[in-house]
Amino acid sequence: MPCTVKQLYAQFQRALLSNNTVSPIVNGYISNITRLKNVSFININDGTTSQPLKLVLKNKPQDALRVGQTVQLESGHIVLTPTRPQPFEISVDSLRLLGNVPDNFPLQQKQLVNLAKIRSKYPLWKFKYNKLAQILRFRSSLELSLANKLDQIGFTKVDAPLLTNNDTEGHNETFKVSAAEWNSKNINLTVSTQLHLEVLAQSLSNVYALSPCFRAEGSDTGRHLAEFWMLELESTNWGHLPQLISGVQDLLIQVVQNIPQNIRDEFKEDIEVQERWGRITNENNWHQVEYRDVIKELQNNKHLFQIAPPTEHTFQTTGISSEHEKWIAEKLFNNGYVFIKNYPKSLKPFYMKPNSDDTVQCFDLIFPQIAEVIGGSVREDLPASLKDLPRDLDWYRELRTVGYRPTGGFGLGLERFIAYLLNIPNVKDTVPFYRVMNSEIVL
Amino acid sequence: MPCTVKQLYAQFQRALLSNNTVSPIVNGYISNITRLKNVSFININDGTTSQPLKLVLKNKPQDALRVGQTVQLESGHIVLTPTRPQPFEISVDSLRLLGNVPDNFPLQQKQLVNLAKIRSKYPLWKFKYNKLAQILRFRSSLELSLANKLDQIGFTKVDAPLLTNNDTEGHNETFKVSAAEWNSKNINLTVSTQLHLEVLAQSLSNVYALSPCFRAEGSDTGRHLAEFWMLELESTNWGHLPQLISGVQDLLIQVVQNIPQNIRDEFKEDIEVQERWGRITNENNWHQVEYRDVIKELQNNKHLFQIAPPTEHTFQTTGISSEHEKWIAEKLFNNGYVFIKNYPKSLKPFYMKPNSDDTVQCFDLIFPQIAEVIGGSVREDLPASLKDLPRDLDWYRELRTVGYRPTGGFGLGLERFIAYLLNIPNVKDTVPFYRVMNSEIVL
Repeated sequence: MPCTVKQLYAQFQRALLSNNTVSPIVNGYISNITRLKNVSFININDGTTSQPLKLVLKNKPQDALRVGQTVQLESGHIVLTPTRPQPFEISVDSLRLLGNVPDNFPLQQKQLVNLAKIRSKYPLWKFKYNKLAQILRFRSSLELSLANKLDQIGFTKVDAPLLTNNDTEGHNETFKVSAAEWNSKNINLTVSTQLHLEVLAQSLSNVYALSPCFRAEGSDTGRHLAEFWMLELESTNWGHLPQLISGVQDLLIQVVQNIPQNIRDEFKEDIEVQERWGRITNENNWHQVEYRDVIKELQNNKHLFQIAPPTEHTFQTTGISSEHEKWIAEKLFNNGYVFIKNYPKSLKPFYMKPNSDDTVQCFDLIFPQIAEVIGGSVREDLPASLKDLPRDLDWYRELRTVGYRPTGGFGLGLERFIAYLLNIPNVKDTVPFYRVMNSEIVL
Repeated sequence: MPCTVKQLYAQFQRALLSNNTVSPIVNGYISNITRLKNVSFININDGTTSQPLKLVLKNKPQDALRVGQTVQLESGHIVLTPTRPQPFEISVDSLRLLGNVPDNFPLQQKQLVNLAKIRSKYPLWKFKYNKLAQILRFRSSLELSLANKLDQIGFTKVDAPLLTNNDTEGHNETFKVSAAEWNSKNINLTVSTQLHLEVLAQSLSNVYALSPCFRAEGSDTGRHLAEFWMLELESTNWGHLPQLISGVQDLLIQVVQNIPQNIRDEFKEDIEVQERWGRITNENNWHQVEYRDVIKELQNNKHLFQIAPPTEHTFQTTGISSEHEKWIAEKLFNNGYVFIKNYPKSLKPFYMKPNSDDTVQCFDLIFPQIAEVIGGSVREDLPASLKDLPRDLDWYRELRTVGYRPTGGFGLGLERFIAYLLNIPNVKDTVPFYRVMNSEIVL
């Protein structure tokens, strides 16, 4: 069985490789070639780690080898290289070409690649760029870290249906679904698993879903995808806003604290990323503010904004924009993480529990760069307050009459969270194949 | 903060509770009431464990309390009960009613509930039945166990898109997707993430997706869902069938071995489930057989089947049915797990690598009860052999020309695997809200 480059480095660290170990079989793609007169140095990557495997080919300059080709190392031996940046290289005895590339194949590993260009132009092999492969490895690790943490604090993972007939957010931005011999009406793709999670929280107390969600919205920005992954939690322990907010904060801090060392190592030279991971795990950088106070601050600084912020007369009907949100996190709270609490009821969906005034028990969590990352609320528990819902949601009201416990919950946009943590300007680069409104699906 | 019933039992095991400990706050639903003259015994469940919490209410018979209601224990004290089945009960000082139920609310915990009846009749609270809640807790634990095992053996989790324009299996059973202002053509819901995983395996070597997949097929059986979850793996280490097959076998054996103790405890009285977990983790129960030999065995036993098995003249055009598959696993291999290998090319999709005869390098893994649980193959690596693909799949051929490494992979139907492991007759009960052809979506 071939082994991976990551496994080879792990064997080295466990002292299982020494000078003249016969190398295991490894395959990968050539990411760099340096030719000297009687020797060639070749870097092999296989996407399991950022570190390339260094091969040394003696005697002939290996004219046929080119960057981008895939090769299989069939035999060779380890040479320890304590004076070089990498701990060892492999002196090659036999190297087999697996896959060729066109003459004009442009793969060159560079510190900075133009993500916007390669994202759409080279979808077949863009993840051979280390920068993009790193994002996918980070994402995988973060999802695992979240799953383990949620298991530890007593949450059951549940798989909510994507085919549904409700539009949780009520924005009418759903994708319709049909099939030739399927007669059911009004099927759409879910915009949020929340309503189903509310059902399951009644039975299981603490539940979460990590699930694709879909919004057919027109925005093609660095913050929007038509298909995105959402982490949604619902709990009978979160029937009050303060407990819900501290649950969110604890979870995010602990998940970042738990990023494993091998993933940390991949980003150790990225100062901005290191700074963000440090800042987010420091409780002092987390803040809470009332929505009505946010409106006052925005009005006091309205000269700073392209979009005029809501006034004391319009704030019940006009929400704040992402420009305002970023300013709140970046400037007002000095690159902090800000829970904006208790929005006007008129701005929020039907399912939020009212306060005694005209606000609801909810928050949006605002991050620097990204603006809203999470929205959450305590849920309306009185069936009488839900009597005007459409008939499709009769069940949602009925749920409150068959042995109900108050719940609260929230939804985290996974791509936005990753984009922030890795300082990626566009969420399109945090998912392997992005989907946005009206872009042709090529792959 | 309220604590869960599971947390309370965990505290007891860690000796944090003693006689007369003031109880923590717990909320849940009443699953049983026993009234005596001057005392009532009440079982509370909250879905975090099968074990109910036993409450004792003295002095009055508590006529207002009913099964199904939700309550919050506000104060009481622990009474150790070493002579009873449960280790302690709680003598209640204050119990608050949270949610009422209609007079005819039928929740009664019984050893055997009619799953087919409650599945569709009581979707709002069916998971308050312990049997169904157990399935969800098991599913959550299994998904976590799979994720940790796959991370450990070097697989990166990737999120493949569900909106696509390909139909991997070519059966024309896709759901079409549309949106009011979305002009892209030919969007459907994915039937398999495989083709996208193939792209990512080229860059990352070992990748997997745990993802909803969709098939608009008419079958309403105990084995089919229109929306189901599939675990799909793709690896550059699996360019040969023997390695792929042993990779599958090792993964399933190890994942069942790793079922955590608290989940094992929930099923310790289910003899059939215990037997299955034992059988699946024993390598001697795993078998491999050539497809052509399967045909001979079926012909030799054709009197046993309702559907006539393929003959030596028809086996290139007619596949075997699930009736035949079950017989192979249950009878021919004595309730074993059977890799049927090297099917005729004419029966399988375009992406499988041919052998030198008219077969392809593939397998179906057959389980007792469930029939096919996994399909896998080595992928076609020659672009010339893919020249007749539809234009939408030009990229799939091109992938073979830009630095290709041979890969293999497989897809596991998660609901079928769970149904087998828990001896559940119908996959509809392994997912919280099932979707099947032409059943109205109520919830």
